Amino acid sequence: RSGEMAKLTQLIDNEVFRAYATYTTIVLLKMMLMSLITAYFRITRKAFANAEDTASFGKGENAKKYLRTDPDVERVRRGHLNDLENIVPFLGIGLLYALSGPELYTALLHFRIFVGARIAHTFAYLIPLPQPGRGLSWAVGYAVTISMAYKVLKTALYL
Amino acid sequence: RSGEMAKLTQLIDNEVFRAYATYTTIVLLKMMLMSLITAYFRITRKAFANAEDTASFGKGENAKKYLRTDPDVERVRRGHLNDLENIVPFLGIGLLYALSGPELYTALLHFRIFVGARIAHTFAYLIPLPQPGRGLSWAVGYAVTISMAYKVLKTALYL
Amino acid sequence: RSGEMAKLTQLIDNEVFRAYATYTTIVLLKMMLMSLITAYFRITRKAFANAEDTASFGKGENAKKYLRTDPDVERVRRGHLNDLENIVPFLGIGLLYALSGPELYTALLHFRIFVGARIAHTFAYLIPLPQPGRGLSWAVGYAVTISMAYKVLKTALYL
Repeated sequence: RSGEMAKLTQLIDNEVFRAYATYTTIVLLKMMLMSLITAYFRITRKAFANAEDTASFGKGENAKKYLRTDPDVERVRRGHLNDLENIVPFLGIGLLYALSGPELYTALLHFRIFVGARIAHTFAYLIPLPQPGRGLSWAVGYAVTISMAYKVLKTALYL
Repeated sequence: RSGEMAKLTQLIDNEVFRAYATYTTIVLLKMMLMSLITAYFRITRKAFANAEDTASFGKGENAKKYLRTDPDVERVRRGHLNDLENIVPFLGIGLLYALSGPELYTALLHFRIFVGARIAHTFAYLIPLPQPGRGLSWAVGYAVTISMAYKVLKTALYL
Repeated sequence: RSGEMAKLTQLIDNEVFRAYATYTTIVLLKMMLMSLITAYFRITRKAFANAEDTASFGKGENAKKYLRTDPDVERVRRGHLNDLENIVPFLGIGLLYALSGPELYTALLHFRIFVGARIAHTFAYLIPLPQPGRGLSWAVGYAVTISMAYKVLKTALYL
Protein backbone atom coordinates (compact mmCIF):
# COMPACT_ATOMS: atom_id res chain seq x y z
CA ARG A 1 0.00 0.00 0.00
CA SER A 2 2.83 2.43 0.71
CA GLY A 3 4.14 1.59 -2.75
CA GLU A 4 0.94 2.86 -4.28
CA MET A 5 1.08 6.00 -2.20
CA ALA A 6 4.64 6.60 -3.41
CA LYS A 7 3.40 6.36 -6.99
CA LEU A 8 0.67 8.90 -6.36
CA THR A 9 3.15 11.17 -4.65
CA GLN A 10 5.38 10.93 -7.70
CA LEU A 11 2.60 12.50 -9.74
CA ILE A 12 2.33 15.44 -7.39
CA ASP A 13 6.14 15.59 -7.16
CA ASN A 14 6.50 16.15 -10.88
CA GLU A 15 7.27 19.85 -11.42
CA VAL A 16 4.90 20.38 -14.36
CA PHE A 17 2.11 18.68 -12.44
CA ARG A 18 2.87 20.73 -9.33
CA ALA A 19 2.68 23.90 -11.43
CA TYR A 20 -0.67 22.75 -12.85
CA ALA A 21 -1.93 21.98 -9.33
CA THR A 22 -0.84 25.39 -8.07
CA TYR A 23 -2.27 27.53 -10.86
CA THR A 24 -5.48 25.51 -11.14
CA THR A 25 -6.09 25.85 -7.41
CA ILE A 26 -5.43 29.60 -7.57
CA VAL A 27 -7.77 30.19 -10.51
CA LEU A 28 -10.51 28.01 -8.97
CA LEU A 29 -10.21 29.94 -5.69
CA LYS A 30 -10.50 33.14 -7.72
CA MET A 31 -13.66 31.79 -9.31
CA MET A 32 -15.04 30.85 -5.88
CA LEU A 33 -14.42 34.44 -4.76
CA MET A 34 -17.16 35.51 -7.22
CA SER A 35 -19.74 33.83 -4.94
CA LEU A 36 -18.66 36.03 -2.03
CA ILE A 37 -18.72 39.16 -4.20
CA THR A 38 -22.22 38.27 -5.41
CA ALA A 39 -23.36 37.79 -1.80
CA TYR A 40 -21.78 41.13 -0.85
CA PHE A 41 -23.67 43.00 -3.58
CA ARG A 42 -26.93 41.13 -2.90
CA ILE A 43 -26.77 42.19 0.74
CA THR A 44 -25.60 45.81 0.26
CA ARG A 45 -27.96 46.42 -2.73
CA LYS A 46 -30.76 44.42 -1.10
CA ALA A 47 -31.47 42.49 -4.29
CA PHE A 48 -32.33 38.83 -3.82
CA ALA A 49 -33.55 35.97 -5.99
CA ASN A 50 -35.35 33.81 -3.39
CA ALA A 51 -38.30 34.73 -1.18
CA GLU A 52 -36.75 32.96 1.82
CA ASP A 53 -33.68 35.26 1.56
CA THR A 54 -35.80 38.37 2.21
CA ALA A 55 -37.71 37.00 5.21
CA SER A 56 -35.55 39.00 7.63
CA PHE A 57 -36.88 42.24 6.06
CA GLY A 58 -40.42 41.51 7.23
CA LYS A 59 -43.40 39.90 5.60
CA GLY A 60 -45.57 40.42 2.52
CA GLU A 61 -45.00 43.40 0.23
CA ASN A 62 -42.30 44.85 2.46
CA ALA A 63 -40.02 41.89 1.84
CA LYS A 64 -41.21 41.26 -1.73
CA LYS A 65 -39.72 44.51 -3.01
CA TYR A 66 -36.22 43.08 -2.39
CA LEU A 67 -36.89 40.23 -4.83
CA ARG A 68 -35.35 42.10 -7.74
CA THR A 69 -32.34 42.23 -10.01
CA ASP A 70 -29.62 44.82 -9.46
CA PRO A 71 -27.10 45.92 -12.11
CA ASP A 72 -24.09 45.36 -9.83
CA VAL A 73 -25.27 41.88 -8.81
CA GLU A 74 -25.94 40.93 -12.44
CA ARG A 75 -22.49 42.17 -13.46
CA VAL A 76 -20.75 39.93 -10.93
CA ARG A 77 -22.95 37.01 -12.00
CA ARG A 78 -21.98 37.52 -15.65
CA GLY A 79 -18.33 37.53 -14.59
CA HIS A 80 -18.88 34.34 -12.61
CA LEU A 81 -20.54 32.58 -15.56
CA ASN A 82 -17.75 33.72 -17.87
CA ASP A 83 -15.29 32.17 -15.40
CA LEU A 84 -17.17 28.86 -15.55
CA GLU A 85 -17.21 28.93 -19.34
CA ASN A 86 -13.45 29.49 -19.53
CA ILE A 87 -12.00 27.85 -16.41
CA VAL A 88 -13.77 24.51 -17.01
CA PRO A 89 -11.91 24.06 -20.35
CA PHE A 90 -8.66 25.07 -18.62
CA LEU A 91 -9.29 22.53 -15.85
CA GLY A 92 -9.74 19.66 -18.31
CA ILE A 93 -7.37 20.60 -21.13
CA GLY A 94 -4.75 21.87 -18.66
CA LEU A 95 -4.72 18.52 -16.82
CA LEU A 96 -4.26 16.59 -20.06
CA TYR A 97 -1.63 19.10 -21.17
CA ALA A 98 0.28 18.64 -17.89
CA LEU A 99 0.25 14.88 -18.54
CA SER A 100 1.37 15.26 -22.17
CA GLY A 101 4.99 15.93 -21.19
CA PRO A 102 5.50 19.64 -21.99
CA GLU A 103 8.71 21.47 -21.13
CA LEU A 104 8.49 22.96 -17.63
CA TYR A 105 9.26 26.43 -18.95
CA THR A 106 6.54 26.24 -21.63
CA ALA A 107 4.00 24.81 -19.21
CA LEU A 108 4.69 27.54 -16.64
CA LEU A 109 4.27 30.14 -19.37
CA HIS A 110 0.86 28.74 -20.31
CA PHE A 111 -0.40 28.44 -16.73
CA ARG A 112 0.87 31.87 -15.65
CA ILE A 113 -0.56 33.71 -18.65
CA PHE A 114 -3.93 31.97 -18.31
CA VAL A 115 -4.28 32.73 -14.62
CA GLY A 116 -3.02 36.29 -15.09
CA ALA A 117 -5.50 36.83 -17.92
CA ARG A 118 -8.43 35.54 -15.85
CA ILE A 119 -7.50 37.77 -12.90
CA ALA A 120 -7.24 40.73 -15.31
CA HIS A 121 -10.62 39.73 -16.78
CA THR A 122 -12.22 39.86 -13.33
CA PHE A 123 -10.85 43.36 -12.66
CA ALA A 124 -11.90 44.49 -16.16
CA TYR A 125 -15.42 43.19 -15.51
CA LEU A 126 -15.89 44.51 -11.99
CA ILE A 127 -14.28 47.98 -12.17
CA PRO A 128 -15.38 48.05 -15.15
CA LEU A 129 -12.54 48.95 -17.52
CA PRO A 130 -13.39 50.36 -20.95
CA GLN A 131 -13.23 47.88 -23.83
CA PRO A 132 -11.16 46.26 -25.26
CA GLY A 133 -9.78 45.62 -21.75
CA ARG A 134 -12.17 42.82 -20.87
CA GLY A 135 -12.25 41.46 -24.43
CA LEU A 136 -8.46 41.22 -24.64
CA SER A 137 -8.04 39.52 -21.27
CA TRP A 138 -10.72 37.01 -22.29
CA ALA A 139 -9.01 36.38 -25.65
CA VAL A 140 -5.60 35.79 -24.05
CA GLY A 141 -6.96 33.09 -21.74
CA TYR A 142 -8.87 31.57 -24.66
CA ALA A 143 -5.75 31.47 -26.86
CA VAL A 144 -3.67 29.84 -24.11
CA THR A 145 -6.30 27.09 -23.76
CA ILE A 146 -6.32 26.51 -27.54
CA SER A 147 -2.51 26.26 -27.48
CA MET A 148 -2.64 23.61 -24.74
CA ALA A 149 -5.39 21.74 -26.62
CA TYR A 150 -3.17 21.66 -29.71
CA LYS A 151 -0.33 20.10 -27.69
CA VAL A 152 -2.68 17.50 -26.17
CA LEU A 153 -4.06 16.48 -29.57
CA LYS A 154 -0.57 16.39 -31.10
CA THR A 155 0.68 14.12 -28.30
CA ALA A 156 -2.31 11.93 -27.54
CA LEU A 157 -4.60 11.87 -30.60
CA TYR A 158 -6.50 8.57 -30.62
CA LEU A 159 -9.79 8.75 -32.45
CA ARG B 1 0.69 -2.94 -22.53
CA SER B 2 -0.72 -4.89 -19.60
CA GLY B 3 2.01 -3.26 -17.49
CA GLU B 4 0.59 0.15 -18.29
CA MET B 5 -2.90 -1.01 -17.46
CA ALA B 6 -1.66 -2.30 -14.14
CA LYS B 7 -0.21 1.14 -13.39
CA LEU B 8 -3.50 2.85 -14.17
CA THR B 9 -5.33 0.33 -12.07
CA GLN B 10 -3.00 1.12 -9.17
CA LEU B 11 -4.31 4.68 -9.24
CA ILE B 12 -7.91 3.53 -8.95
CA ASP B 13 -6.84 0.93 -6.36
CA ASN B 14 -5.52 3.59 -4.02
CA GLU B 15 -8.09 4.05 -1.22
CA VAL B 16 -8.00 7.85 -1.15
CA PHE B 17 -8.39 7.96 -4.92
CA ARG B 18 -11.24 5.44 -4.81
CA ALA B 19 -12.99 7.60 -2.20
CA TYR B 20 -12.50 10.65 -4.44
CA ALA B 21 -13.89 8.71 -7.42
CA THR B 22 -16.91 7.54 -5.43
CA TYR B 23 -17.91 10.88 -3.91
CA THR B 24 -17.18 12.86 -7.08
CA THR B 25 -19.36 10.49 -9.12
CA ILE B 26 -22.16 10.75 -6.55
CA VAL B 27 -22.11 14.55 -6.43
CA LEU B 28 -21.93 14.82 -10.24
CA LEU B 29 -24.89 12.45 -10.57
CA LYS B 30 -26.73 14.64 -8.05
CA MET B 31 -25.97 17.68 -10.21
CA MET B 32 -27.19 15.84 -13.31
CA LEU B 33 -30.46 15.12 -11.48
CA MET B 34 -31.15 18.88 -11.60
CA SER B 35 -31.66 18.57 -15.38
CA LEU B 36 -34.42 16.01 -14.86
CA ILE B 37 -36.07 18.13 -12.16
CA THR B 38 -35.96 21.17 -14.49
CA ALA B 39 -37.56 19.11 -17.26
CA TYR B 40 -40.22 17.87 -14.83
CA PHE B 41 -41.18 21.42 -13.80
CA ARG B 42 -41.03 22.73 -17.39
CA ILE B 43 -43.50 20.03 -18.47
CA THR B 44 -45.87 20.15 -15.47
CA ARG B 45 -45.85 24.01 -15.31
CA LYS B 46 -45.87 24.31 -19.11
CA ALA B 47 -43.06 26.86 -19.09
CA PHE B 48 -40.53 26.54 -21.90
CA ALA B 49 -37.60 28.54 -23.24
CA ASN B 50 -37.58 27.43 -26.89
CA ALA B 51 -40.33 27.78 -29.50
CA GLU B 52 -39.68 24.26 -30.82
CA ASP B 53 -40.43 22.84 -27.35
CA THR B 54 -44.00 24.17 -27.43
CA ALA B 55 -44.88 22.93 -30.94
CA SER B 56 -46.87 20.00 -29.54
CA PHE B 57 -49.30 22.53 -27.95
CA GLY B 58 -50.42 23.80 -31.36
CA LYS B 59 -49.31 26.72 -33.49
CA GLY B 60 -49.12 30.49 -33.23
CA GLU B 61 -50.34 32.30 -30.11
CA ASN B 62 -51.67 29.11 -28.57
CA ALA B 63 -48.15 27.66 -28.30
CA LYS B 64 -46.44 31.00 -27.72
CA LYS B 65 -48.07 31.49 -24.31
CA TYR B 66 -46.00 28.58 -22.97
CA LEU B 67 -42.78 30.44 -23.79
CA ARG B 68 -42.51 31.90 -20.32
CA THR B 69 -40.59 31.71 -17.08
CA ASP B 70 -42.04 29.92 -14.08
CA PRO B 71 -40.94 30.47 -10.45
CA ASP B 72 -40.47 26.73 -9.80
CA VAL B 73 -38.43 26.22 -12.98
CA GLU B 74 -36.27 29.24 -12.19
CA ARG B 75 -35.67 27.97 -8.67
CA VAL B 76 -34.35 24.62 -9.90
CA ARG B 77 -32.20 26.41 -12.47
CA ARG B 78 -30.66 28.61 -9.77
CA GLY B 79 -29.92 25.47 -7.75
CA HIS B 80 -28.33 23.86 -10.81
CA LEU B 81 -26.13 26.89 -11.49
CA ASN B 82 -25.10 27.01 -7.84
CA ASP B 83 -24.10 23.34 -8.17
CA LEU B 84 -21.92 24.16 -11.18
CA GLU B 85 -20.28 27.06 -9.34
CA ASN B 86 -19.41 24.87 -6.35
CA ILE B 87 -18.95 21.36 -7.75
CA VAL B 88 -16.50 22.44 -10.49
CA PRO B 89 -14.01 23.70 -7.84
CA PHE B 90 -14.54 20.46 -5.89
CA LEU B 91 -13.89 18.41 -9.03
CA GLY B 92 -10.55 20.13 -9.72
CA ILE B 93 -9.27 20.88 -6.21
CA GLY B 94 -10.54 17.52 -4.92
CA LEU B 95 -8.59 15.63 -7.59
CA LEU B 96 -5.37 17.48 -6.74
CA TYR B 97 -6.08 16.99 -3.04
CA ALA B 98 -6.53 13.23 -3.56
CA LEU B 99 -3.12 13.19 -5.31
CA SER B 100 -1.44 15.25 -2.57
CA GLY B 101 -1.22 12.31 -0.21
CA PRO B 102 -3.75 13.12 2.55
CA GLU B 103 -4.57 10.67 5.33
CA LEU B 104 -7.46 8.39 4.29
CA TYR B 105 -9.47 9.42 7.36
CA THR B 106 -9.04 13.14 6.65
CA ALA B 107 -9.79 12.73 2.97
CA LEU B 108 -12.98 10.76 3.66
CA LEU B 109 -14.04 13.47 6.12
CA HIS B 110 -13.60 16.16 3.46
CA PHE B 111 -15.40 14.23 0.72
CA ARG B 112 -18.30 13.10 2.92
CA ILE B 113 -18.95 16.54 4.38
CA PHE B 114 -18.79 18.20 0.95
CA VAL B 115 -21.21 15.77 -0.67
CA GLY B 116 -23.52 15.83 2.36
CA ALA B 117 -23.53 19.63 2.30
CA ARG B 118 -24.39 19.77 -1.41
CA ILE B 119 -27.23 17.28 -0.98
CA ALA B 120 -28.52 19.35 1.96
CA HIS B 121 -28.17 22.49 -0.21
CA THR B 122 -30.37 20.94 -2.89
CA PHE B 123 -33.09 20.07 -0.39
CA ALA B 124 -32.83 23.53 1.18
CA TYR B 125 -33.21 25.12 -2.25
CA LEU B 126 -36.05 22.97 -3.56
CA ILE B 127 -38.30 22.59 -0.49
CA PRO B 128 -37.37 25.53 0.24
CA LEU B 129 -36.11 25.64 3.83
CA PRO B 130 -36.03 28.97 5.66
CA GLN B 131 -32.66 30.65 5.80
CA PRO B 132 -29.96 30.18 7.05
CA GLY B 133 -30.51 26.54 5.96
CA ARG B 134 -29.40 27.01 2.38
CA GLY B 135 -26.71 29.54 3.29
CA LEU B 136 -25.14 27.24 5.89
CA SER B 137 -25.10 24.17 3.63
CA TRP B 138 -23.47 26.30 0.92
CA ALA B 139 -20.87 27.64 3.39
CA VAL B 140 -19.94 24.16 4.65
CA GLY B 141 -19.21 22.90 1.12
CA TYR B 142 -17.28 26.10 0.39
CA ALA B 143 -15.16 25.73 3.55
CA VAL B 144 -14.34 22.08 2.78
CA THR B 145 -13.11 23.10 -0.69
CA ILE B 146 -10.94 25.88 0.80
CA SER B 147 -9.47 23.36 3.26
CA MET B 148 -8.54 20.99 0.41
CA ALA B 149 -7.08 23.90 -1.59
CA TYR B 150 -4.88 24.79 1.41
CA LYS B 151 -3.54 21.21 1.53
CA VAL B 152 -2.86 21.20 -2.23
CA LEU B 153 -0.97 24.51 -2.10
CA LYS B 154 0.98 23.40 1.02
CA THR B 155 2.03 20.16 -0.70
CA ALA B 156 2.48 21.19 -4.32
CA LEU B 157 3.15 24.95 -4.44
CA TYR B 158 5.24 25.70 -7.53
CA LEU B 159 4.79 29.23 -8.84
CA ARG C 1 13.46 13.24 -12.73
CA SER C 2 13.31 11.65 -16.16
CA GLY C 3 11.95 8.55 -14.40
CA GLU C 4 9.00 10.57 -13.16
CA MET C 5 8.44 12.00 -16.61
CA ALA C 6 8.43 8.52 -18.04
CA LYS C 7 5.73 7.56 -15.56
CA LEU C 8 3.58 10.53 -16.53
CA THR C 9 4.10 9.73 -20.18
CA GLN C 10 2.90 6.19 -19.52
CA LEU C 11 -0.42 7.62 -18.45
CA ILE C 12 -0.79 9.55 -21.69
CA ASP C 13 0.56 6.53 -23.62
CA ASN C 14 -2.28 4.31 -22.40
CA GLU C 15 -4.76 3.94 -25.26
CA VAL C 16 -7.91 4.38 -23.19
CA PHE C 17 -6.43 7.47 -21.58
CA ARG C 18 -5.37 8.85 -24.97
CA ALA C 19 -8.90 8.33 -26.26
CA TYR C 20 -10.26 10.16 -23.20
CA ALA C 21 -7.77 12.99 -23.76
CA THR C 22 -8.71 13.26 -27.44
CA TYR C 23 -12.50 13.25 -27.05
CA THR C 24 -12.48 15.46 -23.96
CA THR C 25 -10.33 18.04 -25.74
CA ILE C 26 -12.63 17.97 -28.77
CA VAL C 27 -15.81 18.40 -26.75
CA LEU C 28 -14.26 21.17 -24.63
CA LEU C 29 -13.15 22.99 -27.79
CA LYS C 30 -16.70 22.60 -29.10
CA MET C 31 -17.99 24.17 -25.89
CA MET C 32 -15.49 27.02 -26.23
CA LEU C 33 -16.81 27.65 -29.74
CA MET C 34 -20.11 28.72 -28.14
CA SER C 35 -18.34 31.85 -26.81
CA LEU C 36 -17.38 32.85 -30.36
CA ILE C 37 -20.92 32.19 -31.65
CA THR C 38 -22.34 34.29 -28.81
CA ALA C 39 -19.94 37.12 -29.69
CA TYR C 40 -20.89 36.82 -33.37
CA PHE C 41 -24.62 37.18 -32.60
CA ARG C 42 -24.04 39.97 -30.06
CA ILE C 43 -22.16 41.98 -32.69
CA THR C 44 -24.41 41.26 -35.70
CA ARG C 45 -27.66 41.69 -33.67
CA LYS C 46 -26.19 44.60 -31.69
CA ALA C 47 -27.38 43.17 -28.39
CA PHE C 48 -25.00 43.59 -25.46
CA ALA C 49 -25.08 43.02 -21.73
CA ASN C 50 -22.52 45.60 -20.56
CA ALA C 51 -22.56 49.39 -20.99
CA GLU C 52 -18.83 49.44 -21.80
CA ASP C 53 -19.45 47.11 -24.77
CA THR C 54 -21.72 49.65 -26.47
CA ALA C 55 -19.41 52.67 -26.04
CA SER C 56 -18.28 52.47 -29.69
CA PHE C 57 -21.89 53.19 -30.76
CA GLY C 58 -21.78 56.66 -29.22
CA LYS C 59 -22.87 58.03 -25.85
CA GLY C 60 -26.03 58.23 -23.79
CA GLU C 61 -29.35 56.97 -25.15
CA ASN C 62 -27.84 56.16 -28.54
CA ALA C 63 -25.61 53.49 -27.05
CA LYS C 64 -28.06 52.46 -24.33
CA LYS C 65 -30.56 51.01 -26.82
CA TYR C 66 -28.05 48.24 -27.62
CA LEU C 67 -28.14 47.05 -23.99
CA ARG C 68 -30.81 44.48 -24.69
CA THR C 69 -31.46 40.79 -25.05
CA ASP C 70 -31.82 39.19 -28.46
CA PRO C 71 -33.53 35.83 -29.14
CA ASP C 72 -30.57 34.49 -31.16
CA VAL C 73 -28.04 35.51 -28.52
CA GLU C 74 -30.15 33.97 -25.75
CA ARG C 75 -30.50 30.74 -27.74
CA VAL C 76 -26.72 30.34 -28.04
CA ARG C 77 -26.32 31.15 -24.36
CA ARG C 78 -28.83 28.45 -23.41
CA GLY C 79 -26.89 26.00 -25.57
CA HIS C 80 -23.65 27.05 -23.88
CA LEU C 81 -25.11 26.59 -20.38
CA ASN C 82 -26.50 23.18 -21.39
CA ASP C 83 -22.98 22.27 -22.51
CA LEU C 84 -21.58 23.25 -19.11
CA GLU C 85 -24.25 21.25 -17.30
CA ASN C 86 -23.48 18.11 -19.33
CA ILE C 87 -19.79 18.35 -20.24
CA VAL C 88 -18.65 19.01 -16.65
CA PRO C 89 -20.04 15.59 -15.53
CA PHE C 90 -18.42 13.97 -18.58
CA LEU C 91 -15.08 15.64 -17.73
CA GLY C 92 -15.08 14.26 -14.18
CA ILE C 93 -16.84 10.91 -14.58
CA GLY C 94 -15.06 10.26 -17.91
CA LEU C 95 -11.64 10.73 -16.29
CA LEU C 96 -12.48 8.31 -13.48
CA TYR C 97 -13.97 5.90 -16.01
CA ALA C 98 -10.77 6.02 -18.10
CA LEU C 99 -8.81 5.15 -14.94
CA SER C 100 -11.18 2.31 -13.98
CA GLY C 101 -9.72 -0.04 -16.58
CA PRO C 102 -12.49 -0.36 -19.21
CA GLU C 103 -12.00 -2.30 -22.45
CA LEU C 104 -10.61 0.00 -25.16
CA TYR C 105 -13.50 -0.85 -27.48
CA THR C 106 -16.12 -0.07 -24.83
CA ALA C 107 -14.39 3.14 -23.79
CA LEU C 108 -14.15 4.37 -27.38
CA LEU C 109 -17.84 3.61 -27.83
CA HIS C 110 -18.74 5.72 -24.80
CA PHE C 111 -16.50 8.66 -25.76
CA ARG C 112 -17.54 8.71 -29.43
CA ILE C 113 -21.26 8.52 -28.71
CA PHE C 114 -21.04 11.23 -26.05
CA VAL C 115 -19.10 13.66 -28.24
CA GLY C 116 -21.29 12.89 -31.26
CA ALA C 117 -24.42 13.49 -29.18
CA ARG C 118 -23.14 16.84 -27.91
CA ILE C 119 -22.25 17.98 -31.43
CA ALA C 120 -25.71 16.89 -32.61
CA HIS C 121 -27.22 18.75 -29.63
CA THR C 122 -25.47 21.96 -30.68
CA PHE C 123 -26.79 21.71 -34.24
CA ALA C 124 -30.28 20.85 -32.95
CA TYR C 125 -30.18 23.94 -30.69
CA LEU C 126 -28.77 26.42 -33.17
CA ILE C 127 -30.59 25.50 -36.41
CA PRO C 128 -33.04 24.78 -34.54
CA LEU C 129 -34.31 21.30 -35.35
CA PRO C 130 -37.86 20.35 -34.35
CA GLN C 131 -38.17 18.30 -31.17
CA PRO C 132 -37.43 15.58 -30.21
CA GLY C 133 -34.12 16.22 -32.02
CA ARG C 134 -32.54 18.27 -29.28
CA GLY C 135 -34.14 16.22 -26.50
CA LEU C 136 -32.87 12.93 -27.91
CA SER C 137 -29.29 14.16 -28.45
CA TRP C 138 -29.30 15.46 -24.87
CA ALA C 139 -30.64 12.13 -23.55
CA VAL C 140 -28.00 10.09 -25.39
CA GLY C 141 -25.14 12.09 -23.86
CA TYR C 142 -26.83 11.85 -20.46
CA ALA C 143 -27.22 8.07 -20.72
CA VAL C 144 -23.57 7.59 -21.75
CA THR C 145 -22.45 9.56 -18.68
CA ILE C 146 -24.69 7.44 -16.41
CA SER C 147 -23.21 4.28 -17.95
CA MET C 148 -19.66 5.48 -17.23
CA ALA C 149 -20.68 6.46 -13.68
CA TYR C 150 -22.01 2.94 -13.13
CA LYS C 151 -18.66 1.45 -14.20
CA VAL C 152 -16.74 3.85 -11.92
CA LEU C 153 -18.89 3.01 -8.89
CA LYS C 154 -18.73 -0.73 -9.64
CA THR C 155 -14.91 -0.59 -9.85
CA ALA C 156 -13.99 1.98 -7.24
CA LEU C 157 -16.80 2.21 -4.69
CA TYR C 158 -15.34 3.30 -1.34
CA LEU C 159 -17.83 5.09 0.89
